[in-house]
Formats: sequence, C-alpha cells, structure tokens
Amino acid sequence: MSVAEQAGGKGRGDVCCAGLVREVADPRSAEVLARAFKALGDATRVRLLSLVAAHEGGEACVCDLTEPVGLAQSTVSHHLKILVEAGLLTRTQRGKWGYYAVSPGALARIGRLLNESAC
Amino acid sequence: MSVAEQAGGKGRGDVCCAGLVREVADPRSAEVLARAFKALGDATRVRLLSLVAAHEGGEACVCDLTEPVGLAQSTVSHHLKILVEAGLLTRTQRGKWGYYAVSPGALARIGRLLNESAC
Repeated sequence: MSVAEQAGGKGRGDVCCAGLVREVADPRSAEVLARAFKALGDATRVRLLSLVAAHEGGEACVCDLTEPVGLAQSTVSHHLKILVEAGLLTRTQRGKWGYYAVSPGALARIGRLLNESAC
Repeated sequence: MSVAEQAGGKGRGDVCCAGLVREVADPRSAEVLARAFKALGDATRVRLLSLVAAHEGGEACVCDLTEPVGLAQSTVSHHLKILVEAGLLTRTQRGKWGYYAVSPGALARIGRLLNESAC
C-alpha cells in the first residue's frame, strides 16, 4: 500500500494528510519541496519575501529593500538570488535594476500542501 | 506606514499578501517562521513528516520509519528531533518507544500564511 493510500484509507484522528502525503510520497517531490523550504529557512529571506509581497505594485528592486532589512546591497542581492533560484520570487530586468515579485503559484502550492496536511 | 498597512491599502495586481506580511513584519516573527522552514529544508525530513502524518492513527515510532526512508535508526531519530524542536512534530514516550505525531496547529498556521500570501 502506498503512503497516499494509507492516508486515505485509515482512521486519522483529527489530522488529514492528503496534501503533504500525495506530494511527497516520492523522494523527488520531497527534494523540490525541501529546496523551497531551505530558501525560507533564514529570517532575512522570510522578511525579504514579505517586503517584496507588500511593496507597491507587488514588486520591488534591491534599492527598495536594503533599508528595511538594514543590510548591504550585495548581501540583499545574494538573499534575493536564493529566493529566485528556489522559485519563490521572479526577477525582471528593467534598465539598471532587477525587479522582484512573489511567485504566487509556488507559495500557494506549498501553502495548500501544509493546510491540507492539518485540516 | 507599516508593511501590513501597505499590503492592505495599495493596488497589488493579482497577489494579496495579508498573511505573510502580517506575520513577518517584525524580525521576531520572521525568526520563528524561519526555524520551521529550516527544519523542512531537508528532503528526508519532508518525507519523515509525511510518513508520520500518513501512518495509521496519525502517529509513528522510529521503528516504523527507518525502512521507508532507508536510513539507520540513529539518523532517523536525529531528523525527528529537529522536527520536534521546530514544533512540527510532537513526541510522546510510551514504554520503550517515543511516538511522533504531526503538530496540526503549526502546519496549518504556516500553510494559511502562504496561501493568504498568494490568494
């Protein structure tokens, strides 16, 4: 019996786990998820993601973010690069600056997964 | 203007970010969240969380988990300890074994946060 079948077919107390189980039954899906979680495993990056999400128009450049987090531009750029590589932010070059926006699909997918795991 | 007020008061395109912004506007909340994400930033721990969640009765001991992930008991115990310390699993000692269960509150909170950030 697969892990997903176990989740659906047996008594579960007050936790139902369709989301997480369905997605991470195989090691490859777990790798993809872990990569996104690892990128968020740093308080500065959590704050940067929220600052980008909250910024006017839903996007921000590095120049908008250095002051709120109190870090040098090179450090902020490094953190933003990690968030882009994990698929949590997108980056669009316009003239001198790159503009970052939250990647809604990625966040919603992880969120649904966790919510369904603890519904 | 606070980050949360920015999120509520301005045009956001198709991303609304009340959840993430409300929770991580301050560095302390970001630290708590990052700790949970960091614990999940490892594919083995993502799989262990899903295996515990999927296990009959919603709880599992180390002895149930070593074979599915193909790792030694000491390694699995180490990963489980990290998940407990991050508040993602609970551990109850019964006789010889500790029994692990998903902490529904923690998962649901993070899940809501991300879902609201990309609704």
